[in-house]
Amino acid sequence: MAAQHHEPGSGRAPDGAAPPGDDARLSVVPPSGEPAERAAAQVADLTVPADHLQGLAGVGEGFKAAFARHPAGVAIITARGPEGPVGLTASSVSSVSVDPPILGFSLQARRGSAAVVAEADSFLVHLLDAENLGLASAFAVSGTPRFGDDMPWEYLPTGEPRLLAVGRVLRAVPLARIKAGPALVFNAAVVDVLGHEGSGSPLVYHQRRFHGLSDRSVLDDGT
Amino acid sequence: MAAQHHEPGSGRAPDGAAPPGDDARLSVVPPSGEPAERAAAQVADLTVPADHLQGLAGVGEGFKAAFARHPAGVAIITARGPEGPVGLTASSVSSVSVDPPILGFSLQARRGSAAVVAEADSFLVHLLDAENLGLASAFAVSGTPRFGDDMPWEYLPTGEPRLLAVGRVLRAVPLARIKAGPALVFNAAVVDVLGHEGSGSPLVYHQRRFHGLSDRSVLDDGT
Repeated sequence: MAAQHHEPGSGRAPDGAAPPGDDARLSVVPPSGEPAERAAAQVADLTVPADHLQGLAGVGEGFKAAFARHPAGVAIITARGPEGPVGLTASSVSSVSVDPPILGFSLQARRGSAAVVAEADSFLVHLLDAENLGLASAFAVSGTPRFGDDMPWEYLPTGEPRLLAVGRVLRAVPLARIKAGPALVFNAAVVDVLGHEGSGSPLVYHQRRFHGLSDRSVLDDGT
Repeated sequence: MAAQHHEPGSGRAPDGAAPPGDDARLSVVPPSGEPAERAAAQVADLTVPADHLQGLAGVGEGFKAAFARHPAGVAIITARGPEGPVGLTASSVSSVSVDPPILGFSLQARRGSAAVVAEADSFLVHLLDAENLGLASAFAVSGTPRFGDDMPWEYLPTGEPRLLAVGRVLRAVPLARIKAGPALVFNAAVVDVLGHEGSGSPLVYHQRRFHGLSDRSVLDDGT
């Protein structure tokens, strides 16, 4: 994948050097290295029993059609791999628990960037807004150039590559990697909030297209 | 919760009696009792190590703010409880794997409808469209009347209460209930697809309001 062809030093910030100032503006919680390290040391590998489900192959087409029509928020998950920064677009990120702060997502982790994220001790979850459309596309399509000069980014002092155009960014460490068929379901503790506001117009993925929300898309005041 | 005050027989269909015809039109896969029963017999209770995360309480406010701005599709999960049909609105439903067909969601299952769903051998996942706004609100707010005459529903022959106004409906059996802090993360096998089309304008939850998607909300052709 393109991200793995990244030359160290070709991005905007050198390894490990975060420009001062920017971080202080967005951080609402100072980096909490100790809980992060404790969490990373305890990641559990669990398995969902699924070997008995072969009889359900016929359900797949209807399942795919139903979920293609189910909208989702869009995130880019980045991690530092042995060959440089990697990232992938994910539409399965959700909040699992606020106290303690746990998020969940799933991915197919056999190769490429997903395999690097699956093995990482920590990663950044960037929650995308409409203005991040270009990033969403680049990190969704294998082979697209990433972490180039047109995508400002930096390594955090803690090691993860941060995409600076994204306003809502969470640093997380895996608590559990749960094997469910060919997928890995992650539960991860959020150890730092690097930004939580964003533009107010989030990106939505639906029927293989990206949508934006605005006041005009509101149906009701909700709950 | 209101759903638990439901009088047997007060809904549109009596217990266990599914009106003929409607099911045949929407089903793309015939009810597959055998895999469902095998799956239900093997549900695993797993635990994500999270007891060491107390130091992260300060992250909660930023975490909540970031996820309030993260949009999500909306689903109603229903099950048959000892006192009648129950259901709840969930914004964490996502596709985990297509083959085998596995979906995921999380809930706080200590009491009420969520506790019934958590113990159910099978449930229905209704993926909502804009026209289901009223249902989404009713099943999101504790104490709101549900399964009344204004909400056409029926028990499927397999026992789960189906909301007939929803076009995309999946029958699922739990594979794993994963305790993550105060939440339960579910992985469930989809054993039947009762409908997979819907209206094409799905419901989205964002900043405590419901939105609808349409051609006007498209930003790009996506991937």
